[in-house]
Amino acid sequence: MSAKEIAARLRREDSFLIVTHQRPDGDTLGSAAALCLFLRNAGKTAYLFPNRQVTDTYLPFVKPLYMPQDFVPACTVAVDVADTKLFAIGFDGHIDIALDHHPSNTGYAELSLVMPEKAACGEIVLLVARELGLEPDPDIASMIYMAISTDTGCFAYSNTTADAHRASAEMIEAGARLEVLNKLLFRTVSAARLKLEGMIYTGLRRYRDGQINIAVVSLEMLREAGATEDDCDDLAALPGRIKGNKVSVTVRELQPNHCKVSVRTGTEADASAICAIYGGGGHKMAAGCELDASPDETADRMLEAINEVWK
Amino acid sequence: MSAKEIAARLRREDSFLIVTHQRPDGDTLGSAAALCLFLRNAGKTAYLFPNRQVTDTYLPFVKPLYMPQDFVPACTVAVDVADTKLFAIGFDGHIDIALDHHPSNTGYAELSLVMPEKAACGEIVLLVARELGLEPDPDIASMIYMAISTDTGCFAYSNTTADAHRASAEMIEAGARLEVLNKLLFRTVSAARLKLEGMIYTGLRRYRDGQINIAVVSLEMLREAGATEDDCDDLAALPGRIKGNKVSVTVRELQPNHCKVSVRTGTEADASAICAIYGGGGHKMAAGCELDASPDETADRMLEAINEVWK
Repeated sequence: MSAKEIAARLRREDSFLIVTHQRPDGDTLGSAAALCLFLRNAGKTAYLFPNRQVTDTYLPFVKPLYMPQDFVPACTVAVDVADTKLFAIGFDGHIDIALDHHPSNTGYAELSLVMPEKAACGEIVLLVARELGLEPDPDIASMIYMAISTDTGCFAYSNTTADAHRASAEMIEAGARLEVLNKLLFRTVSAARLKLEGMIYTGLRRYRDGQINIAVVSLEMLREAGATEDDCDDLAALPGRIKGNKVSVTVRELQPNHCKVSVRTGTEADASAICAIYGGGGHKMAAGCELDASPDETADRMLEAINEVWK
Repeated sequence: MSAKEIAARLRREDSFLIVTHQRPDGDTLGSAAALCLFLRNAGKTAYLFPNRQVTDTYLPFVKPLYMPQDFVPACTVAVDVADTKLFAIGFDGHIDIALDHHPSNTGYAELSLVMPEKAACGEIVLLVARELGLEPDPDIASMIYMAISTDTGCFAYSNTTADAHRASAEMIEAGARLEVLNKLLFRTVSAARLKLEGMIYTGLRRYRDGQINIAVVSLEMLREAGATEDDCDDLAALPGRIKGNKVSVTVRELQPNHCKVSVRTGTEADASAICAIYGGGGHKMAAGCELDASPDETADRMLEAINEVWK
């Protein structure tokens, strides 16, 4: 499908329900809010399907757009959702249109516009809206900016493209509330998260001159920091940031004597081979496994596995 | 001066020395390296004045461009330097051309192009080069990208502009080594810095339901973390990142019983009024003072000052 064909279908319909993905991030929520507001600006009725997993950071942007209980849309649109299994909890209806940038999109929708070359789904929403002759107002520009900036890790992740920067430039010119959003999304951290990071950093285990870094996150640490699931985003990335790191491991205690392990490597070592030793798997540079052991034991056993695979 | 006039002068000269500022950052170094390479691509002789304060992160980009000992340039250019007092240590010559974005530029150069509306000086170098009919190769694009991305805090600081994003998009298209640079500049941290942050976070003092946050950095902590000055960048910004923070203080022990204090506030409290109590000063939202006291005593006395000024 082309953006033009999607736009033609949107033009024909009068009322829309927009569906986001489970454990929603800034891209699915920003894309949904932007599309909803674009459609309203075009004189349509549009709402979001309520996503009960939205965190406090994002809730103010999407909650005012949630559908009334008895809402029956003429057309449903999923944004940034690769698979029907990933729909926001509680949604089990039919999807007419999918806008997505995941190459793994299963083609569940009647019409799909899947553009894996886009850093964020928000860019696809913008493209489609422009096919409808719509330009973003400051609220919409803010939501598109939120989508792009969060999915690119504030333009630092390897998926960042020239187009992502260019679209952000356009959103800033269209009035995106850059300073408020950047502070909220990238320069604010919960006290619990900060305390948890403090404990993780001070307890870091380093081996082979710092080429191997193992971070341990125990239930006791989470309790002591007062951390909830919201405070545990992307913990697997923390030890890999250390200069000179080649293999990083994050051990997360899920239940007493049961730990989830994430392994990240550069080009030197094979993460999936390391995790395979304990029945896990994944990719060469990112893999995982689970062990029935305490966090300390798990860390020791992961070091053994690394030493076996990466000499 | 216009970019055109600067370009005309550059075109007339044959050999150039480029001067950066003290405690050099990614903008002054990226601007200097980019200008040097642009001029060489135009068939000129160009070198950088060696800056002995360059940190390990940046050294590989600039060291190969340092001037030979006996180099006598026809023209000197300062990039991102606001004042002659700020020249790289050891430079005390005349400056023919200044390219700068600091509104405080003192006009020390014969010709100055000062554009405070630019997020980074690197954008001005790009502008001037284009007046010369030059386009960046991948090495130059990388240096311009480094200048822009570091001066905007990877596009998260409030000085970020649409132009900064657009120039970055162009540099990516020109072959800037985005992934290597983003990892090096924004996703790598020294083990010592991480350990130091860990100690700072776990020792954080929080008052009035977390509206006041005081971070303490003692000489003992620096020793224990193995941290050098390179690892102490922007410590003053750390406690202000906490959700709900209104007044943040960073106490840094410089010598036994002598501490430097940085105070940052939002719109609620006046940082300079707080610091004035101990003879310090600054701006409403960022100020500093020094106390002859231990880190613990200094933290206590700063809390008293905050309580006196901000009821």
